[in-house]
Amino acid sequence: MDAPDGWSFEDGGKALTRSLKFKDFSEAFGFLTRVALHAERVDHHPEFTNVWNRVDVRLTSHDAGGVTDRDIKLAKAINSLLPG
Amino acid sequence: MDAPDGWSFEDGGKALTRSLKFKDFSEAFGFLTRVALHAERVDHHPEFTNVWNRVDVRLTSHDAGGVTDRDIKLAKAINSLLPG
Amino acid sequence: MDAPDGWSFEDGGKALTRSLKFKDFSEAFGFLTRVALHAERVDHHPEFTNVWNRVDVRLTSHDAGGVTDRDIKLAKAINSLLPG
Amino acid sequence: MDAPDGWSFEDGGKALTRSLKFKDFSEAFGFLTRVALHAERVDHHPEFTNVWNRVDVRLTSHDAGGVTDRDIKLAKAINSLLPG
Repeated sequence: MDAPDGWSFEDGGKALTRSLKFKDFSEAFGFLTRVALHAERVDHHPEFTNVWNRVDVRLTSHDAGGVTDRDIKLAKAINSLLPG
Repeated sequence: MDAPDGWSFEDGGKALTRSLKFKDFSEAFGFLTRVALHAERVDHHPEFTNVWNRVDVRLTSHDAGGVTDRDIKLAKAINSLLPG
Repeated sequence: MDAPDGWSFEDGGKALTRSLKFKDFSEAFGFLTRVALHAERVDHHPEFTNVWNRVDVRLTSHDAGGVTDRDIKLAKAINSLLPG
Repeated sequence: MDAPDGWSFEDGGKALTRSLKFKDFSEAFGFLTRVALHAERVDHHPEFTNVWNRVDVRLTSHDAGGVTDRDIKLAKAINSLLPG
């Protein structure tokens, strides 16, 4: 399993993470809102931390105890929501 | 007073309006969230209507009974929040 | 088909509508965000208009040309998202 | 300086933190959206982490290197946004 562009495996492969930096809080939170909409649609939710223009995302499948295909798909979907 | 790019005067100059079309609902609502954040910051709120990927925005200053400089500024700020 | 609590049929039964009033813009937009999350989850989207603390919602099934069971369900789900 | 209801001082008093649990992701993210709107209005932003129905909030004034009156006010405002 390869990590999608910009993502890294962490915790011995148990999670997929990416750190993002935006122009300001508004751009960061607009992005998070789109991630939230997607997460509800596919019923798979990321862990995220926000401080002003920074967003750290962490993906794992709690029921499987590690990274699954659902996380890989979610990581790719999140990439597609990044502003130009 | 000139209308900012993409905006038109309506109701005999009493309101400034713009119709926008996005890729899908997610892009439309991500944009609306950023408009909402801006509106709270400047304490001047637009009227908006959303149907899936379409957003219609209408700006007026209720206390002044028409378009004021605050609406012109808000229209320009909204333009700056449009995705790429 | 009965209209759920607070909703009315309009346009000769072609749409289901409800007008809502909140404490302020923040409460109105927090509600709209939850409606948006639900809409993406069930892939059925309302039309809504917001002016500060007011939200007007209109439901119809475009493909069916009128109100269907999906609109009734969406109306009930929206009711359940109203703040206490 | 007393910590507002539900908040604790951490890092030797350098930050104010609160852990919150909601009914589901939708209720958690609706709350976060309202926190975001407030943060833009007062131009003071929290650090927050979300995993499904859990939200951890951390407040500090980076320029002052610790908790200031702005954080106390923000903590109280966040309390007022909690769902009934």
